[in-house]
Parts: sequence; structure tokens; C-alpha cells
Amino acid sequence: MQEDGSLSVEEKNLPNIEIGAILVKTLYSEVCGTDVHLSHNQLAGVPYPIIPGHVSVGVIDQLAGEIKDVDGKLLAVGDTITFLDVHETCNSCWYCLVAKETTRCPSRKVYGITYSANEGLLGGWSQYIYLKPGVKVIKFEDGFDPLFFMAGGCGLPTAIHAVERANIKLGDSVAIQGAGPVGLMAAILSKIRGAFEVILIGAPRLRLEIAKEFGIDFIIDINEYDAQERVTKVIQYTSNRGVDCTIEATGVPSAIREGLQMTRDGGTYVVVGQYTDAGEVNINPHIEINKKHITVKGSWGSDFSHFHTAVKFVQKFQNQYPWRKIISQIYDLDDVNTALNDVKDLKVMKAIIKPN
Amino acid sequence: MQEDGSLSVEEKNLPNIEIGAILVKTLYSEVCGTDVHLSHNQLAGVPYPIIPGHVSVGVIDQLAGEIKDVDGKLLAVGDTITFLDVHETCNSCWYCLVAKETTRCPSRKVYGITYSANEGLLGGWSQYIYLKPGVKVIKFEDGFDPLFFMAGGCGLPTAIHAVERANIKLGDSVAIQGAGPVGLMAAILSKIRGAFEVILIGAPRLRLEIAKEFGIDFIIDINEYDAQERVTKVIQYTSNRGVDCTIEATGVPSAIREGLQMTRDGGTYVVVGQYTDAGEVNINPHIEINKKHITVKGSWGSDFSHFHTAVKFVQKFQNQYPWRKIISQIYDLDDVNTALNDVKDLKVMKAIIKPN
Amino acid sequence: MQEDGSLSVEEKNLPNIEIGAILVKTLYSEVCGTDVHLSHNQLAGVPYPIIPGHVSVGVIDQLAGEIKDVDGKLLAVGDTITFLDVHETCNSCWYCLVAKETTRCPSRKVYGITYSANEGLLGGWSQYIYLKPGVKVIKFEDGFDPLFFMAGGCGLPTAIHAVERANIKLGDSVAIQGAGPVGLMAAILSKIRGAFEVILIGAPRLRLEIAKEFGIDFIIDINEYDAQERVTKVIQYTSNRGVDCTIEATGVPSAIREGLQMTRDGGTYVVVGQYTDAGEVNINPHIEINKKHITVKGSWGSDFSHFHTAVKFVQKFQNQYPWRKIISQIYDLDDVNTALNDVKDLKVMKAIIKPN
Amino acid sequence: MQEDGSLSVEEKNLPNIEIGAILVKTLYSEVCGTDVHLSHNQLAGVPYPIIPGHVSVGVIDQLAGEIKDVDGKLLAVGDTITFLDVHETCNSCWYCLVAKETTRCPSRKVYGITYSANEGLLGGWSQYIYLKPGVKVIKFEDGFDPLFFMAGGCGLPTAIHAVERANIKLGDSVAIQGAGPVGLMAAILSKIRGAFEVILIGAPRLRLEIAKEFGIDFIIDINEYDAQERVTKVIQYTSNRGVDCTIEATGVPSAIREGLQMTRDGGTYVVVGQYTDAGEVNINPHIEINKKHITVKGSWGSDFSHFHTAVKFVQKFQNQYPWRKIISQIYDLDDVNTALNDVKDLKVMKAIIKPN
Repeated sequence: MQEDGSLSVEEKNLPNIEIGAILVKTLYSEVCGTDVHLSHNQLAGVPYPIIPGHVSVGVIDQLAGEIKDVDGKLLAVGDTITFLDVHETCNSCWYCLVAKETTRCPSRKVYGITYSANEGLLGGWSQYIYLKPGVKVIKFEDGFDPLFFMAGGCGLPTAIHAVERANIKLGDSVAIQGAGPVGLMAAILSKIRGAFEVILIGAPRLRLEIAKEFGIDFIIDINEYDAQERVTKVIQYTSNRGVDCTIEATGVPSAIREGLQMTRDGGTYVVVGQYTDAGEVNINPHIEINKKHITVKGSWGSDFSHFHTAVKFVQKFQNQYPWRKIISQIYDLDDVNTALNDVKDLKVMKAIIKPN
Repeated sequence: MQEDGSLSVEEKNLPNIEIGAILVKTLYSEVCGTDVHLSHNQLAGVPYPIIPGHVSVGVIDQLAGEIKDVDGKLLAVGDTITFLDVHETCNSCWYCLVAKETTRCPSRKVYGITYSANEGLLGGWSQYIYLKPGVKVIKFEDGFDPLFFMAGGCGLPTAIHAVERANIKLGDSVAIQGAGPVGLMAAILSKIRGAFEVILIGAPRLRLEIAKEFGIDFIIDINEYDAQERVTKVIQYTSNRGVDCTIEATGVPSAIREGLQMTRDGGTYVVVGQYTDAGEVNINPHIEINKKHITVKGSWGSDFSHFHTAVKFVQKFQNQYPWRKIISQIYDLDDVNTALNDVKDLKVMKAIIKPN
Repeated sequence: MQEDGSLSVEEKNLPNIEIGAILVKTLYSEVCGTDVHLSHNQLAGVPYPIIPGHVSVGVIDQLAGEIKDVDGKLLAVGDTITFLDVHETCNSCWYCLVAKETTRCPSRKVYGITYSANEGLLGGWSQYIYLKPGVKVIKFEDGFDPLFFMAGGCGLPTAIHAVERANIKLGDSVAIQGAGPVGLMAAILSKIRGAFEVILIGAPRLRLEIAKEFGIDFIIDINEYDAQERVTKVIQYTSNRGVDCTIEATGVPSAIREGLQMTRDGGTYVVVGQYTDAGEVNINPHIEINKKHITVKGSWGSDFSHFHTAVKFVQKFQNQYPWRKIISQIYDLDDVNTALNDVKDLKVMKAIIKPN
Repeated sequence: MQEDGSLSVEEKNLPNIEIGAILVKTLYSEVCGTDVHLSHNQLAGVPYPIIPGHVSVGVIDQLAGEIKDVDGKLLAVGDTITFLDVHETCNSCWYCLVAKETTRCPSRKVYGITYSANEGLLGGWSQYIYLKPGVKVIKFEDGFDPLFFMAGGCGLPTAIHAVERANIKLGDSVAIQGAGPVGLMAAILSKIRGAFEVILIGAPRLRLEIAKEFGIDFIIDINEYDAQERVTKVIQYTSNRGVDCTIEATGVPSAIREGLQMTRDGGTYVVVGQYTDAGEVNINPHIEINKKHITVKGSWGSDFSHFHTAVKFVQKFQNQYPWRKIISQIYDLDDVNTALNDVKDLKVMKAIIKPN
């Protein structure tokens, strides 16, 4: 992908692999909203040209040396694996060591986003991916269909992080703003994390219908109700108090004020969807923050623990949820432009590239 | 005080006291910023005419029945006491019992604010105060000068609540926005709660000078530096990261954005000063909340635990701080208009009414 | 019930009801392990004779005045309700107001335990129960079978409190020691609170089989495996680390050491089952606490918030769980001695008295 | 130091330094209680012979390559520095990445303890110390006397970790069991972390007198009062409730039961002193854990964040505390046997080796 968003398929030589590195033959790689932002050059510091694709699964084709996963198990050629796209979190800066906020480490690099195509096969929309020494790998259980993991995609660890920040109590009511991959995952996770009522607010209808099949209690279609009506409905669902917790997963600044208003006094509001700069929003700090005695938490990215839980989650719940409903379409590498456009146009819930 | 802010001194009969009630002869009562708001009719639901004065100390003149304080000690005529202005927190609604956010209980009443003068001597700018059955009383230690408690005033429990919400870690840097009573108390409390660097941002100069005498590390005069310069200075003081925690105590909406900007990624921002509706503020939710991975906490009012800690605090630290510097002037009941105007005009740090 | 544990059915007059009080016609009342302890005079300060039965449901027969539930809804004759057995939590002592640990309030009274039969109809094994003014009542949703609530019984709010103390993270593994009502409820709740693997350790076989029908992942029968084998099995189930969290619900002191050993380094251990004094236990503080970097939490009783969540829980999940499997038998008031003996002898999972 | 505890001074060649490594000329190194345990071969897995000394300060003599400290500042020859003794925390195992409990990482190595003298100059009782690539270094502020940092020694970060685990609230009362370096530091830190009353329980008299000079409120000499009397005194100091928090820093198993008994219901008990296996202790889980609704936290070791705060702390408070009182004596390298014996015999509060 170039700075202007154009995409072309190119042939490259397979790399020689260093000690500690792994060459993965790609099974699937995700097309996510971030890739749309990348195609519009909306993220700072991206070293175009890049090979997009930050969440991918594949089969180990070659590996050099003895490499263990986080549970101490030896990896071998033929293992079906996934890996954490975030790499080079430094473990030696103030953010890593003192604040213990590794998602704010200035050294971190992300496969498919902050590595240049000139540096190697460091993105998932490719037949092979080169995992540098130290990239964190998890092997799937035997018999697990890795496509289910792709259904969660990068929205899943992001949502796990957001739901952990939300600190839901047993019996809480939770509203989710946004029915994209992060919103849908946050809704499902809130349910299995103790919420008794989960309200999903979003569009289009297709996504809301999928959410119902995943057991979400209430649906509010933003094409049917305006912002004020949505706030009113949420308050009505919750004994006229508002929800205990709201998770924002929209990317739209105006959602912030709406989300504050639908959260009860003393509740929690997690902001995870404002991943790119889409402008400003007006709030009333007396009414919406101070008097509300609210807690607002930004949630940025995810770390290995969220990724680890994500893998555990899809394996554990593989038969309990209709995962395949999320994956609208699987595209060949040659159809990558179509895939990206379909995601742009919200034609699909989740698009997957199958390069081989 | 009438709805138009006019004040007059009136004679009333002393009440007959019910079982469980206490009649207090007033020593001192506070004039605080809320009283200025009351005089401008800026709070909702105030049953004018009222007797203002929500934080007061006095001597027990009469009491009916056996009344114990929270530590189980019997109260007696002649005891020097103070009492929690908040009364009738119901202990039977959802906010009291399930959410455990008693400051959001809809039944709570506040001496000097939400009781009408027609209901009795239920405010502190009066020679006597009638404490209804169930009002929570604390007796001071023998020999303690209750004027020191007035130096803290209602800003002290408010600041204790805010500092608890801030959850400061040993060694943190803290910025306080606002040099009024809440801001000054929050700055002092942050120091004794483990912060290693406290930066107080405000005006006028007099207040900043007092803050220095209380041991505050850094002072930023808002008359010398504009908002952007203030943010820059705070970031420079903190290894170019921003403070671990900021506590807003200004009442000015634009302070919110400035406060978010001076807090480090992953830090905490407590909003306690937006006590009345002074309008809106623009924020950028991507840059200032989501990417910052920040936690923002509204802090509303205070409960008995904060009041209890406040009394303990001034008694414990009575000789360690120059409390008297805070009290600019003591006014007779007849000079209550002057007192209120002096507070309005920021001529004094803290004005005290001495009705007897 | 007398001090020697003897039980007899007696006729009493119905009381005149004070303003704020409710007379309830009893539908069901629970026989729980605490009643066995009461029959052995193993609790301190019980004012025998008492009417046992602390968790009960019934229909409002009479009420005096306008009485609202915690959500502000008016109660009426004919409503099917339950009530919190704990009463007179004082809201004016240090534990209620400063520590905010109302379960440690010295004034609290408990229906069926700390009220004497001489004081009135203040226990559930009776055709009518007198709810004093201020007793906290919750009305069930229309159409809800209150027998499901009895299946949870007093073990349910106790378990909710314990699971809240456990602070389970999404994906955690949890071991529950004890398959009685508290243990079974804690196991179910851990699952819906985000645990991915729940291991229930207990006996007899019947209870373990019920647990499986409630979806518990792993069962360890204490009649098949000794303490060391149980620890080994738990560690094997969890990648050789031990569980993230263990909840003790046995009442047996030796369980403590076993529970510490099966919890991973840095994990959490909640002690909720040691409700009566059954003696001491040896631990090694270096190996089992300090080096383990463990967090151990005692969990005493429950408060209104746990009771509120309990009612919400059984109503929400009434069709998702086989609640009736828990209720082994329903006894007439005349068979109360048989009921108590069946609980004593672990013949039943849950015994219910139906007085009318 | 050999397995039998014998010590001799040997000449070694200075090493060639790898890229990223630093050679430090030692100023001071600590003799701590752990060194006594090491001399009795009481720690598992120590690769004797070793060069003891895990907390040290020195001057950079040589360094290879561009090395930055955690704040991003370049290090240079002549800088006065200290370093974290813990090295090789792997950042790739389950404990590092998922549990985020790096003190339980199985790969971690400790200078002066788990490195053999055969592997190089990897301990502080030596004229030079070789800091391998990746060892975490902090440079002191210009003009700071590094001897003050030695006064805190390894007890300081250990105590910081324990005090963080204690989660002291503003106004809490805290009891510290043990007047050794960890206990004294925990007492001082509790004061500056918001505790209003700190009670230090220990011996000998000399240490208690030093504690008074550091501002500790109450002293209980264990040579004057037996365990039951100590519990009684603590409860008397705290309105008959017990302290809000107790921190154990004794290493004596029987202290555990005493500590549980002096902590109030709902309080917190931190166990940090049980660093070696000194046997078992009997507790009553009903009375001392469950009914008490207590939270008990083991606290193992410390990580870089505690070390970083320790350096900040001594620099910030260098003029506010009589640090030099703690350092009883400074020994030449040739007197290392005397130093170790003086620590063994509790003749000194803190012994320091000055190798050059």
C-alpha cells in the first residue's frame, strides 16, 4: 500500500531467517477499519509503502533455533499459529517499567502498520510473513479452526482491553456505542464478564441482527432513533438511571457526549473507538462529568495479555457462538482492492484475505 | 438570604428540641464560593429564604436524650463540635444501597443550602443552629482551636474526596488547577498522600504565596502564563511527560482541556471544581482521551468519611501548618454582606462569620 | 428453636402493624447450614427461643402506610416479595460511615437468627412474618416463580459477595472448594463473571452431578482424591501454575492450606466458608503467602447490594439453569425436624419449608 | 562467599566489556539480612561461590556504546549511578506478559545472589562491578550523596512495594511489625503515603530510637511487651478497633497471627518479611480471616518501578530525614567478615562495605 492508498501485488524473495525468527505461510489476514484509515493516510508516522494486515494466522514454514511460546511450549514446523502484531515494546523505558503502560511505549512497532515493505515481509496481506526474533507467538489447540480467531480479529483484543477497563460488576447494565467489530466484541464480552443487560447501539441492520444471534439483550438502530431518543431509550431500559457502564466504539466525536448522557451517575464510560483524529466535541463538564461523579477511561490498543485472552476466548467459545456469521467474505490476494472498498462501504462485517 | 441575594439579620425564637436533637451555639461559620453562587441563584432547587452557612463549629447548648458520636462517645452540653452539613441521606434508595454512591442520593439535604429559613435554624450564619435528630456530629479533641478546622472549611472534605479519587501513588507528580480553598487543600493533601512534586496553578499572588508556606513545590501564576504556556511548564517539570495526576478545582470549563493536556499518557484527571453550570468546553476525544489512555473522574460532594478524615487531619496537623494564614478575616454577623462581597471579589482567601 | 436445638410449632396471635411495617404470608423459607449451627448453639449471642428461617419469600398480606422498594416502586397487598434478613444496620457508626463495611456494623440484626421469638414473628419458619419498618423489600417480577429464588437461598448473596471480592478477570481459571449451596453458587457465578475454567471440589456425588448440569467445567470428588492429589490435579488443569483464583466454601480449617497451595503465584484466595469456629490450621507464611505474592480475602456476610443482585440474577437466568434440581425437598412446617436433620446429614442439596 | 559462609578477598582481572555493558567502580555496597541467610545457605539455587552485595552505588568507569537510562538520558564515564540488582526478567513468559507479576518471572537473576563469582564481577562487595547489557541503571542528581541511598538499601524498594500493596487511605492508622531496615522504611513511607498514625513494633531499643527521629508516632518495644500485650496496645491506640493496616517485616512466623489480631475488621495485612522458610504458624481462619473480612497480601521482592521510586525518594527527602543515623558503620572490604557478623548479631542498623 502506497501513501495514496493504492495497492498492488508484488513478488518478493523469501528472506533468510535469523536465529529466533519464524517464517509463516499465511492462512488468513484481516482487513480492518485501520486499513481503511491507512489507505487514507490518516495515521501519523507510517513508512509507506507497507504490507498491510496486522492480525493474521498461518502455519510455521521454517524456524531457526529453539523457540518457545509464552507457556513454555516448543514451536515446530507445521504448527498453526497467530502472533501479536505489536513488537519491540522495549521493556526499558519509563512507560514500560515505571508506568507499566506498555501500549504507550514509544519504541513499539506494529506489523502491517509501522514496518515498511522495504524492511521485509512484515504484514499479513502476503503469502509469507517473517516473524522477527522476539515476536510473541501462540499456537492454536489441535483441531481449532483458525478462521474463528479471524472473526474476532484485531477488534477482539481491543475489546478485551476496553472491557477490562470497564470493570463491570456482576449484574451491571452496559451500553455499547457502535456495531462494528470492536463494538460487537465488546458487547459479547460484557455479557460473559457479568453484565445482565447489554444494549448495542449502531447500524447497519445486518450487524445488529448478528448481535442478536450472539445473545445481545437490546438493540438500538441509529438509523431509526436520533441521539436524544437513544439516550432516552437507554435510560428507560435502566429504571430511569442510565447504564452502569458505556463503552464507546464508534470513532465519531459526537458519540462522546451521547455516551456520557446515557451513563448513570457514578458510572463508567470507556472511550476506545476514537482511534483516529475525527475532530472535537463539546461537553458540559458540570452536568456530564462533575455532578455525574462519572469515571471516563480512554483505552488505547492492547498488549500481549489481551491477545492471549483473545486466543483463549475463541478456542473456549468456538462452539457456543455463530462465529462464521461475522465473516461476510473471504478474498484472494488479487481482490484486495475490492476487500478494502467493501470494508470502507460497510458492505461487510468482516473481510478476510486468503493469500494462498 | 433571599432569591435576589439580599441578606438581612433577623431575630427568631429558639426552638423546642426533639429527642435526638442538639442546639448548638455557633462559634464560627464559613463563607464559601457556594454562598456566592447561592447569592446569584445559580443552584437549582434552593428554598429561599435560607440561612446560609454549611460548615460551622459551635458549642453544645442543649441536647435531648442520649446522643453518641460516630466513635460511640456520649455528647454533652459544653462540648465543642462540628457536624456534617449533609443530612437525610436515606440509606434506603438504589444509590445509597446498591451503587453505594451516597453523594448522589436524591433525598439528601444540606444545612445552609437546601433547608429553608422557614423550617428553622438550619444554617450556620446564625447565633444558634438546630441539629435535627440524626445529624452526624464530631466532637473536637480538648484544647483544639476550632478556627483551624474553619481554615479548611468545606473545601477540605471536598478535596479529601477528590484526592481519594485521584489514587496517587508514592512518588507521583500532581498538578492542581485552581488556588481557591479546594485547590489549596487538594495541593496540601496530595503532598501528605505520597506525591513528591505538587504544582499549583492559579491566582491571585496572595494565595500562591500561602501555598508556598504550606510546602507546595511549584507555583504557576495564571496572570503570568497563558494556558498553552502553563501546559508547557507542567510538561517541562515532569521529564517531558506531563503529571501523573491533575486535579481540577477552578469552576472554569476551559480548564478541562488544559488539564487533560498537562496529564501524562495513562494518568488520572479528577474534575471537582465544576460545581455549577458555567457552560461547555471543546475537547478532542482522540488526542485527549483515547490515545492518552487517560482516566477522568468526576468527584461530587463528600460523604461522612471525608468529613471524619477532615476533622482528624486538622487536629493531627494543627501545629505543622500555618492554618491562620488562610483565614484572611473574621466578620460579625452584621458584616455578612461585606464578607460575601470580599469572597466574591477574591479579596480574601477564606472569610469566617462569628455570630456571637 | 430452643438453645438445645429442639423445635416445636406454636400458635401466636398476628401482630398489630406499625406505620411502615408489612405482614407477609410466607410462601417458602430456607433451611440452611446456619440453621444446623443454630441447633447446636454454635453461634454467639443468639436470643433463644428463636423462629429460624432467614431467607424467605411471601405475599404481602397487610401493610401500613406508603412503602416503597429500593427502586422507588410502591408496594401493595398481594405483591410477591422477598426481604433482606439483615436489619438495623445503623448508618451512624464508624463501620457504616467511615470504613463502609456495613457487614461489620455492631448494631445489625438478622431475621431468623438474632431476633428472639419473644419479640414477634421475626423468622421465616412461620405462616406469617412481620417486617418491621425499614426492612428492605424487593418485589419479584410478575410471573416469576419465587421457588427459583429459594434455590439460591442465602448461599446466593453470600456467593455474590465472595465472587465480587475475588475480582475475576476475563479468562481466569477459578477453583471452588466445597459443593454446598455457597460453593455451587460461587461456581455458577464465577462462570458468568468471566472465568473460562471453573473447577468445583467437593462431595457428595449428587451435588457434583448437579454442578455439571449448571455448566461447571471440572469436578473433583473429595471422596476419590486426597488433599495432595486435589492440589496436583488443579495445578495440572492450569498449565502447571495453579488457578488464578480460589474460593473457599467448606467450613473446614484444613481447606485453607490446600486452597493456598492450588492458587498460582500472584493469585487471589477468598475465604467465605469459615462461618463458624471449627478450629485452627497450620500454614507456612513464607511458601504460602509471601513468596506466593498471594492476596487472601475474608468475605463476611452480605449487604443489600448482593441481595439485590441475587434477585436480579435468578429472575434473569430463570430459564437458563435447572434451578429445581437444587431443591431436593419441600417440607411442611410440621416436618421441620426432618428437614433440619436431612440438611445435617447432607441428604439434600437444599431443603425448603412451606408453612402454608 | 562459599556454601559454608566463609568469605575471602580475591584478585580478579577486569573484564572486557561487551557492547551495552558498563564497568562500575564501586563506592558502597550493602550488607543486608539476605547476606546473612546466604552465609547460612538458606536460599535455594545459589551458585556458590558468589560475590555478595545486591544493592550498590558506584561511578561509571567504562561503558561500551550508547547507553540510556530509563528517562532517556545518555550515561557517561564519571556518572554516579546505582542499578537494579534484578536482571533478565524475560518479558516473554506468562508471568511477565499475562499475569504482569515480573517478580515471579522464573528467568530473573539477581546480582550478588544468583550469579556465580565464576561468571564475573556480578556482586557489589568488589572494587568493580560489571553491569551486563540491559542492566537497568539510574544516575543520581548532581550533588546527591549516594550514601543516603545506601541508608535505604534493598529494604527501601522492598518497603515501597509493600506500602503500595497496603493501599493506605488518607488518615489511616498503620502498624509495622519489625524494626529492621524493611520495617523502618515501611514505617517512614506509610507516614508520607497518608497514614496519620504509625506504630512501629520491634527491637532493639536503638532502632526504635532512630524510628522516633524519623517521626514515627508510636513505638512498642517487643522486649517490654509480650505478643498479647502488643495486640492490646495497638487496639487501644485505635479507638478499640485495631489498625486499618498492618505490615509484617519480621521473618518470624508467629508474627502472622499477632498481626492479624491487631488489624481491624475489614483491614489490610501485608506480609513482606517472610523472605526465608522459618517454619509454620497456626491461625484460626474463622476468627482471624473470614469474620474479620480482612485482606492479606503477600509481597514478594520488588521491580524496577519500586527501585525508581526509591531513588526519587531519597533524593527528594535527603534533607528532611536523618539518613546517616541508619548507617551504623562503614567497613573496608577486608573487614567484610566483621560486617556480616555485626549484622547477624543485630549490632548495627545498617552495615555498608566501602571496597575502594
